[in-house]
Amino acid sequence: MVRWQPEARGRLEEAALALYGERGFENTTVAEIAERAGLTERTFFRHFADKREVLFSGSGALQELLVRTAADAPDSLAPIDAAAAGLEAAGAQLEELRGREFARQRQAIIAASAELQERELIKLAAWSSALADTLRDRGVGEPAASLTAEIAIAVFRIAFERWLEETNERDFRQLIRESLDELRSVTAAG
Amino acid sequence: MVRWQPEARGRLEEAALALYGERGFENTTVAEIAERAGLTERTFFRHFADKREVLFSGSGALQELLVRTAADAPDSLAPIDAAAAGLEAAGAQLEELRGREFARQRQAIIAASAELQERELIKLAAWSSALADTLRDRGVGEPAASLTAEIAIAVFRIAFERWLEETNERDFRQLIRESLDELRSVTAAG
Repeated sequence: MVRWQPEARGRLEEAALALYGERGFENTTVAEIAERAGLTERTFFRHFADKREVLFSGSGALQELLVRTAADAPDSLAPIDAAAAGLEAAGAQLEELRGREFARQRQAIIAASAELQERELIKLAAWSSALADTLRDRGVGEPAASLTAEIAIAVFRIAFERWLEETNERDFRQLIRESLDELRSVTAAG
Repeated sequence: MVRWQPEARGRLEEAALALYGERGFENTTVAEIAERAGLTERTFFRHFADKREVLFSGSGALQELLVRTAADAPDSLAPIDAAAAGLEAAGAQLEELRGREFARQRQAIIAASAELQERELIKLAAWSSALADTLRDRGVGEPAASLTAEIAIAVFRIAFERWLEETNERDFRQLIRESLDELRSVTAAG
């Protein structure tokens, strides 16, 4: 009989992150993660499809939140501001559920692996594509919808990098707003 | 003795594109490409490291042109306009050396393969990163340099997609300028 272990997922994540950091992602096996967490491989596979998913399991929910918030933004908002509302919601969620320390560890692991960097690029391309769909549903034409989605994701990436680096107390929402202001300043006609 | 075959590279590219289009990238072998071109596998490998490189061999030269043109742009240009000068040069080069029909075929092949889509994302991420380096060399601070580079690549992607689709006669440079205007319009404060 399988006992439900509510804390198993968190223990597996913690063990995986520690091992990826120590040995590198490629050199870590699922068996080692399970052992470090004091659980079985079978339990691991009940929570994650593979060892990569430990690092990307939150991505689908964040994409959904991003898109839903942009879709529900007031009609009066310009497309970039509707997108920004979605970015802020996703950033705040990331901050609340995961926190900076998890994100920093995760980012260092990704930076050390070409395979994970590819996966991260694909994740962001999927966000961009889903956001462009949402903007088209809001009545935004092309190429404005695709362009707005692409630059919104660029804003998110910049805000995310700053959030990881910041030693001060600014939160993710604020960094999204600052990066958007920065975007307006770098794109202003000279 | 190896006879120099100046037309061999072009024949291999043409054969590869035709086969990738007919059977899909994954289902085509180097042996088949060489056979279709009436050449040997050995000749193939004198021109390309692997079958993927047939689709990406021009990427390094385009990146170099993009970066060099942005670096050499007049100091008086705003960062986004220096980046746009690089994009225009790369776009014009692509148009002149490859042409729309090659680009369309290539794009259809990439769209049908997850592996090639990843490679394409990585290529564009490398362009963005090289462009951000160049902007920093021009004295642009962070996050402005990274943000400008990211959105410049977004502008390039949009212009590229429109260039592939256009039935009219607008050239790549013009589409870059139009996409940049569009960017300014979508990022303008509401």
